Amino acid sequence: MTISNSGSKSGTTVRIDEHKLLADLETLGKIGLGADGGITRKALSREDAAARAYVADRMRAAGLDVRHDEVGNLRGRRKGADGATWESREPVVMSGSHLDSVPSGGKLDGPLGVVGAVCALEALDAAGVTTRRPLEVIVFVGEEGSRFRRGTIGSAAVSGHVSVESVLALVDPDGVVYRDALATYGDAGAPIAAQAQAGAIHAFVELHVEQGGVLEAAELPIGAVTAIAGLVQRTVTFLGDANHAGATPMNLRRDALLAAAEWALGIEHAAREVGGGAVGTIGKLTVEPGGKNIIPGRVDAICDLRAPSRELLSALDDYVVSSLHGIGQKRGIELEQQLLQRVEPGPMHEPAISAVERGAAAAGLRSMRMPSGAIHDALHMAEIVPSSMIFVPSIGGKSHCPTEATDPKHLAQGVLALAHTLAILGND
Amino acid sequence: MTISNSGSKSGTTVRIDEHKLLADLETLGKIGLGADGGITRKALSREDAAARAYVADRMRAAGLDVRHDEVGNLRGRRKGADGATWESREPVVMSGSHLDSVPSGGKLDGPLGVVGAVCALEALDAAGVTTRRPLEVIVFVGEEGSRFRRGTIGSAAVSGHVSVESVLALVDPDGVVYRDALATYGDAGAPIAAQAQAGAIHAFVELHVEQGGVLEAAELPIGAVTAIAGLVQRTVTFLGDANHAGATPMNLRRDALLAAAEWALGIEHAAREVGGGAVGTIGKLTVEPGGKNIIPGRVDAICDLRAPSRELLSALDDYVVSSLHGIGQKRGIELEQQLLQRVEPGPMHEPAISAVERGAAAAGLRSMRMPSGAIHDALHMAEIVPSSMIFVPSIGGKSHCPTEATDPKHLAQGVLALAHTLAILGND
Repeated sequence: MTISNSGSKSGTTVRIDEHKLLADLETLGKIGLGADGGITRKALSREDAAARAYVADRMRAAGLDVRHDEVGNLRGRRKGADGATWESREPVVMSGSHLDSVPSGGKLDGPLGVVGAVCALEALDAAGVTTRRPLEVIVFVGEEGSRFRRGTIGSAAVSGHVSVESVLALVDPDGVVYRDALATYGDAGAPIAAQAQAGAIHAFVELHVEQGGVLEAAELPIGAVTAIAGLVQRTVTFLGDANHAGATPMNLRRDALLAAAEWALGIEHAAREVGGGAVGTIGKLTVEPGGKNIIPGRVDAICDLRAPSRELLSALDDYVVSSLHGIGQKRGIELEQQLLQRVEPGPMHEPAISAVERGAAAAGLRSMRMPSGAIHDALHMAEIVPSSMIFVPSIGGKSHCPTEATDPKHLAQGVLALAHTLAILGND
Repeated sequence: MTISNSGSKSGTTVRIDEHKLLADLETLGKIGLGADGGITRKALSREDAAARAYVADRMRAAGLDVRHDEVGNLRGRRKGADGATWESREPVVMSGSHLDSVPSGGKLDGPLGVVGAVCALEALDAAGVTTRRPLEVIVFVGEEGSRFRRGTIGSAAVSGHVSVESVLALVDPDGVVYRDALATYGDAGAPIAAQAQAGAIHAFVELHVEQGGVLEAAELPIGAVTAIAGLVQRTVTFLGDANHAGATPMNLRRDALLAAAEWALGIEHAAREVGGGAVGTIGKLTVEPGGKNIIPGRVDAICDLRAPSRELLSALDDYVVSSLHGIGQKRGIELEQQLLQRVEPGPMHEPAISAVERGAAAAGLRSMRMPSGAIHDALHMAEIVPSSMIFVPSIGGKSHCPTEATDPKHLAQGVLALAHTLAILGND
């Protein structure tokens, strides 16, 4: 089965091999698969390395010139008009995503943008479409932040948002240093520089599942992403008294869990009050000592706050921090609080956004402009080059979970839109 | 240093060897000691077995005739007036407690009532006090319920509250069967029957730290326990949608943690409303999948509800169960709920309570009558024989935690009161 555009102005018909695309996703979806049907592939883990090795082979099979860079990003290039890949005089058009996952996540978040880009280049080859500029597929390391203290590691290094040295010095919760963990990838030969030279990249576009329910509700196959919501993550420790659950009267308790519960419900309330697309979540929360007849003496929680503008993000964050103080005082709970990361909201760029719209139109697909509530590697790429993203619908808006899914037709349509967008950006 | 009564009517002065008592507690407090200073000795674990072996040696050193019963309770007897221990014609007066702990618990909860009873018998020996009835020190297995699905295992078997067969068939979360786990104790020889014959026991009294703040507030060294609060424990699973924390608008979420948070705060409110000493706690709560950028899709929690009367306990439990339904409906959360255990409140017995009061008075100590908010082995013993407990103050009301502590003077005073109480019950 192929999916193709029927009304390309160029007269060239680009066809996506849907079977191959789905087979790639299926293969990757078995690496790190858990009993619950979820995927767990932490950055630089054996599972991540196995998925990356599969993609490296696919890149080579697609005729790409494959390299790896200093922080472990995997990069495969298709030649431009001058016949060169890495040595081309033309700035490159890049596309890609990541292969690492959240714990027990889905099989599309990341992999679609990776194998989708490989399939898009194969479709251009098959259709005889060449571009003046080289096209590069990149696999960014550690987008999810589920192992090291930060996410979007690979793209932050490419954009120069963080230094290569600081990436290599990252340490995971088990004390493993990123520099040493890189050996898991087993790359032979010297890496290329991770950070992009000024002017070396023409544009970046990332194909991804929406992970929300907006496209599904609008019944549209393609979203052209205009901005990425900013993020604040804070760790908070609530310290109370781990006392006997039977012998301690209610009025003598300092229950860390009740303080955290009040805070969690307050975050929900604040996100609704702030509005404008602001959201707030506590996704990670542990209770100690955890005996069923012991009052919780300690709770460690992480809050995740997002909003599409600095103003909304700060308003939500201010509420969340200030509410902690009141809860702590009322309940006699000591608080330890730390900013884990703040990522400012990032606008995408008009040339890239409109290229996505034109790419979708060339593929015969309707699209809409929309922001992304989730952070992606495109956020960092947009710091240095015109960037945008192509979203395809998520069934039920589900993502970061085993039931994450997209209609196969929408997957192939996203890849077709990407192929046309790359052809446009490669020749504009 | 010794602590002794100054005004015994009998003219006999009973002295507690405080150094020996504290050394025993110190020794036991090193078995299962964790990095946080807490004790973890699960029932039938190697740590529990090591503590029990130490006590068996102490029992023998104190001249007791030591046996073990079918469920693993350790039992040491001092002879009665007929010179017999296990073969005496007189019903025995029993005292004891347990050696297992909650995860990261304190060093007094259980051990005080065990080595305290041994020290009390040594003090009676030293003072030349004999009793018509044999006196028995018993170490009950598995009081805390931190390994198998139920607590107060050993006393429930002695009282006949549960059958020996059902105890032996218990299975821990790792699939280990109680019958097999018993081998950890390494007992040689045939066990004696666990279940008491009718009329074989005259009375039971258990020395224990209060685990609450009542005696401390009243500035009294001894509590004579009049009743033990009943208990309901329920496991509840909240099932929502594990969706992306950034891409899912607040109004499309089904957040399992927020449902659990609302329920937890509702339990606190209900316990205060019900009053009369009712308490409610969620001590164990886990969040899945637990990624910091994933909306919690599943929360497993256990609630622990207590009250000193059936009516109050049922009122609290009814609220807790019915509130779940409303929260689930409002938030679109599916609920799975299971009764883990219900233990009815248990009154102690006037002959035993007054024996404790007289024992304290004979020791020159002031006492007050009080209920116990925590469950103890005395609950089951009270089902078959006149029983009571001796409470000593807990500093700051703390228990089930590493900072559980009692003024050493109060520890020795508790043992002195116990020695006099046993002498009274042994001869009355």
